[in-house]
Amino acid sequence: MIETSVCVKLANGSIVTPKGFKATGVHAGIRKARKDLGAILCEVPASCAAVYTRNQFQAAPIVVTKDSIAAHGKLQAVVVNSGNANACTGEQGEQDAFEMRTLTAQQFGLEEHLVAVASTGVIGEMLPMETVRGGISQLSPTEDEQDAFGFYEAILTTDLVVKKTCYQTMIDGKCVTVAGAAKGSGMIHPNMATMLGFLTTDANIDSEVLQQALRTVTDRTFNQITVDGETSTNDMVVVMASGLAENEPLHPGHPDWDKFFQAFKSASEDLAKAIAKDGEGATKLIEVNVHGATSEDDARMAAKKIVGSSLVKTAVYGEDANWGRIIGALGHSEAPVNPRTVDISLGDIAVLKQSEPQPFSEEEAKRYLQQDTIVINVNLNIGDFSGTAWGCDLSYDYVKINASYRT
Amino acid sequence: MIETSVCVKLANGSIVTPKGFKATGVHAGIRKARKDLGAILCEVPASCAAVYTRNQFQAAPIVVTKDSIAAHGKLQAVVVNSGNANACTGEQGEQDAFEMRTLTAQQFGLEEHLVAVASTGVIGEMLPMETVRGGISQLSPTEDEQDAFGFYEAILTTDLVVKKTCYQTMIDGKCVTVAGAAKGSGMIHPNMATMLGFLTTDANIDSEVLQQALRTVTDRTFNQITVDGETSTNDMVVVMASGLAENEPLHPGHPDWDKFFQAFKSASEDLAKAIAKDGEGATKLIEVNVHGATSEDDARMAAKKIVGSSLVKTAVYGEDANWGRIIGALGHSEAPVNPRTVDISLGDIAVLKQSEPQPFSEEEAKRYLQQDTIVINVNLNIGDFSGTAWGCDLSYDYVKINASYRT
Repeated sequence: MIETSVCVKLANGSIVTPKGFKATGVHAGIRKARKDLGAILCEVPASCAAVYTRNQFQAAPIVVTKDSIAAHGKLQAVVVNSGNANACTGEQGEQDAFEMRTLTAQQFGLEEHLVAVASTGVIGEMLPMETVRGGISQLSPTEDEQDAFGFYEAILTTDLVVKKTCYQTMIDGKCVTVAGAAKGSGMIHPNMATMLGFLTTDANIDSEVLQQALRTVTDRTFNQITVDGETSTNDMVVVMASGLAENEPLHPGHPDWDKFFQAFKSASEDLAKAIAKDGEGATKLIEVNVHGATSEDDARMAAKKIVGSSLVKTAVYGEDANWGRIIGALGHSEAPVNPRTVDISLGDIAVLKQSEPQPFSEEEAKRYLQQDTIVINVNLNIGDFSGTAWGCDLSYDYVKINASYRT
Repeated sequence: MIETSVCVKLANGSIVTPKGFKATGVHAGIRKARKDLGAILCEVPASCAAVYTRNQFQAAPIVVTKDSIAAHGKLQAVVVNSGNANACTGEQGEQDAFEMRTLTAQQFGLEEHLVAVASTGVIGEMLPMETVRGGISQLSPTEDEQDAFGFYEAILTTDLVVKKTCYQTMIDGKCVTVAGAAKGSGMIHPNMATMLGFLTTDANIDSEVLQQALRTVTDRTFNQITVDGETSTNDMVVVMASGLAENEPLHPGHPDWDKFFQAFKSASEDLAKAIAKDGEGATKLIEVNVHGATSEDDARMAAKKIVGSSLVKTAVYGEDANWGRIIGALGHSEAPVNPRTVDISLGDIAVLKQSEPQPFSEEEAKRYLQQDTIVINVNLNIGDFSGTAWGCDLSYDYVKINASYRT
């Protein structure tokens, strides 16, 4: 099976499926009852790459993770807590994040610079360090699937479901696995906050090449989802590559590069879509495909503008084929459009062709909009580039969740 | 009273208070029962200025109004319908908008190029021209306050209240009046859509000077409100100046320029705030003041980012002093900030100083957030410029109104 496809999805795969990885999740006590501290540990110092929030207020754990990766471009462990974002916590917060790194390094017998730190939760409150210290001393990662599941749980906040994925492909005749876990039900939820993504792979690949690939993949996946158009202080995606699959080093000129890239992108896209679908209060996943744009950037920007529109989101929630809102959002984007050449369809139902309204059956459209996943296709008909973005509808529950979370 | 102040607000003033203006509003039948067609008529060809939506899909009436103003830089009448936006209606829609202009010019005995056209309502449906023709033939503007009120009503869509304002000031010893009417409860509502603003004044002022002033005022008022971060295809603000106050021509070097500018800005700000406060589903007006920025543009941009944040809006709705959301939105804006020097207060309650969380009474904050108008003050402490933006909270009713409006 693997040989005939670019890559295959492993329904039972997990972040410990790639060779060399262990994981765990525990209840330290930062949150009342749920798991709140997790770690991924690699047998060897792994090649690594990371992307961070563009928010100008970057949280303390981001400072620490950047410091670690800057040292040698390698990571061997990542420690993550939920329940407290350690953001806007000043000097003390930074000291706390560095202490998390030190303690985790000691617990696993590693050099400090091989440890990344991530946090998610309430902003502006100090980490309960006694609790965190006790939690770190309990961390004992294994290759057991149950422990991987413990990690998935430990990183959640307002999420309703765990988010995981796993792909395999053949590279140089070796089986290479890419897996990932994520949390997030919105771009920013300063109460119970943030999007975090963790990818593991046993591919043999240099950190620099991995960083390039991560940036490209992130632009097409994690950066193309939006729940409420906002960006947390703590967003982070980290990937670790153990190299234990023993393929020849991967780079864009490698004959099997496309297979690796596809597995990497598929894993990231799965996690990104899972986050969008689990958006706070969401009842539907919305996918917007923009074709015929003058550049890929423009296509992605236009798709994201549409999927981020409060009025498109409420119309989808209301199962209302209100294409005027799609046009409104598109015209408000900075991507160039020709107001006379736009096609729009909801799934297969054409509602606008060459900017002229098309007759369509409201009942058929309503039936389509009752699905779990709504696909909006837009063709600008002015170029050859395409882009996709994912989001969710805007429901009463989004307001409910966010109106009263902190108090 | 007038002599001692820069300008005074006339509680009973209306768009027909400035010398030379008449108005009317009728029920043509575009909407079921409410007034849906209105006009303002000036005794003389008036100096004029207009600003339009930046949406790339500009509706047909905008094409027509631009054509009118381009001819001689004068307007003598504006005709407005609600219930149908005449947007995304192709060639036929443009013909219909031009016909509205022709018929209105005939009705009032004017040259065509002296008539502006505006529309607001559902997108993508053709104007019912038989109904519009019948309506225009009923238009008979007067100086009566009742008819001015008819105009205010005829331009509304999802608005809950009419929006009007009037200021007077003394220029060259003459009494000059600036008045205005507006509609809009969101930046875009392609069902029942759009922000429209109409200002009348009897000031003697050239169209070019008026256009400059309108652009400056719009940047500080109408462009600084947001309900849902979107921009309609039909947004338009038009100002007509009859010159009948007989002051010396106004320009920025005129000794009384500041008084005129203040009256003009105050009238625009009143209308802008009234629109924000009447935002779909809104229960509160939110004002965000950003101080200490490195430029006025940056201050305004940061203020607008905060007031437009769904998470800030839901927190205000929930009366939750969740300042982490304010920081999150601020850091996500493109205005430069120093993450270590930010002050934030809710009204007079300081919650952040030099980026360090401040202890405050949750009860006191809750009491403050129960008011009708919430003021968020942010000081970036990196420059000398300030900017303000206005918006509203995000409630269950916003979702309700927008989930099911069209069907």
